[in-house]
Amino acid sequence: MRLFSMPSSGNSYKVRLLLSLLGRDCAVVDVEDGSDAIEAARVAGRLPFGKAPVLELDDGTLLPESNAILLYLAEGSAWIPGDPVARAQALGWMFWEQNQHEGTVALRGALRFYPHRRHLATEARMAELLDAGHRNLAIMEHRLAGHDWLAGPAPSVADICLYAYTHTAGTRGGFDMDRCPAIDRWLRRIAALPGYRGLDG
Amino acid sequence: MRLFSMPSSGNSYKVRLLLSLLGRDCAVVDVEDGSDAIEAARVAGRLPFGKAPVLELDDGTLLPESNAILLYLAEGSAWIPGDPVARAQALGWMFWEQNQHEGTVALRGALRFYPHRRHLATEARMAELLDAGHRNLAIMEHRLAGHDWLAGPAPSVADICLYAYTHTAGTRGGFDMDRCPAIDRWLRRIAALPGYRGLDG
Repeated sequence: MRLFSMPSSGNSYKVRLLLSLLGRDCAVVDVEDGSDAIEAARVAGRLPFGKAPVLELDDGTLLPESNAILLYLAEGSAWIPGDPVARAQALGWMFWEQNQHEGTVALRGALRFYPHRRHLATEARMAELLDAGHRNLAIMEHRLAGHDWLAGPAPSVADICLYAYTHTAGTRGGFDMDRCPAIDRWLRRIAALPGYRGLDG
Repeated sequence: MRLFSMPSSGNSYKVRLLLSLLGRDCAVVDVEDGSDAIEAARVAGRLPFGKAPVLELDDGTLLPESNAILLYLAEGSAWIPGDPVARAQALGWMFWEQNQHEGTVALRGALRFYPHRRHLATEARMAELLDAGHRNLAIMEHRLAGHDWLAGPAPSVADICLYAYTHTAGTRGGFDMDRCPAIDRWLRRIAALPGYRGLDG
């Protein structure tokens, strides 16, 4: 098993974080954005949807999509809620992350962070992403003001999934995290979990 | 159990289609885009992420996100692959649908279909969405040229998920479906399944 992973990307970091929390080893192939390595992996057909991360199984099967990889690796562990309703709520957060959170919170961070994307960061677009991102962070803040975790009574794959781009929303994305005290406490709870590793760790 | 469903939306149609294929009854509350009904449901707190569909359980629990609802309803049925790798691949297609397919194939259709969104359909944006949508349809075409179904050897929730906006990609989205003969055959296979119902059915 080996992971094609983009070192700077939250989607790849999610998978590295879960592996670390599970105490599992996995070979990692770094494929940074814009590098020769990611182009080589694309040409070799290792990135079915053209993106990292991708988990390659020992028989060569390729599993794309960060959240699908989280669910595959977490199978049978306490990271997937056993209760069907809590599990559906965890999945709801994870689909919402890909549909709403990534395209606002993560995207604004990417447009500020990656030099080759900065020409796309027009003033109008960045203002629009700031508003939309704050609305999405408010949805998380609302949940976390009354609960320790996003779905069910314990940390789950939904928390790992949303941690990745939320923990850099202030520094990379320029979002005002002072509006989100419950998110801040949740970020600290995750960083205190045994086996936690940071984005650059 | 009742479903808050947007009659014109592919995301809501997915859930109605699965219910029909499963032979399950469910009360449906229509909340059309821009209607008083959807605004009332929002104000009443029935749409946790502000969007339809939402499945309300008998105890009042609200499950948002179309693909999470599909997975909840399909639990224990043959619509979720039993094999862990095929299941991970089905989930991969479903996350990709929310992250890539919806924001291109579905979005271009929405900008053409909904009168109150047409001011967003600038020439440059529609051209960009046409290119990006064709690239995403090509990813599906590549898989379906060699396989009957998106994940594993039988129809799954991934097929229902991607059917919703793909079956209107030509008519609503203006995509050139003549490039996608394998997708066309797959759409016909789904429409021939026992219990199938159309978007307006």
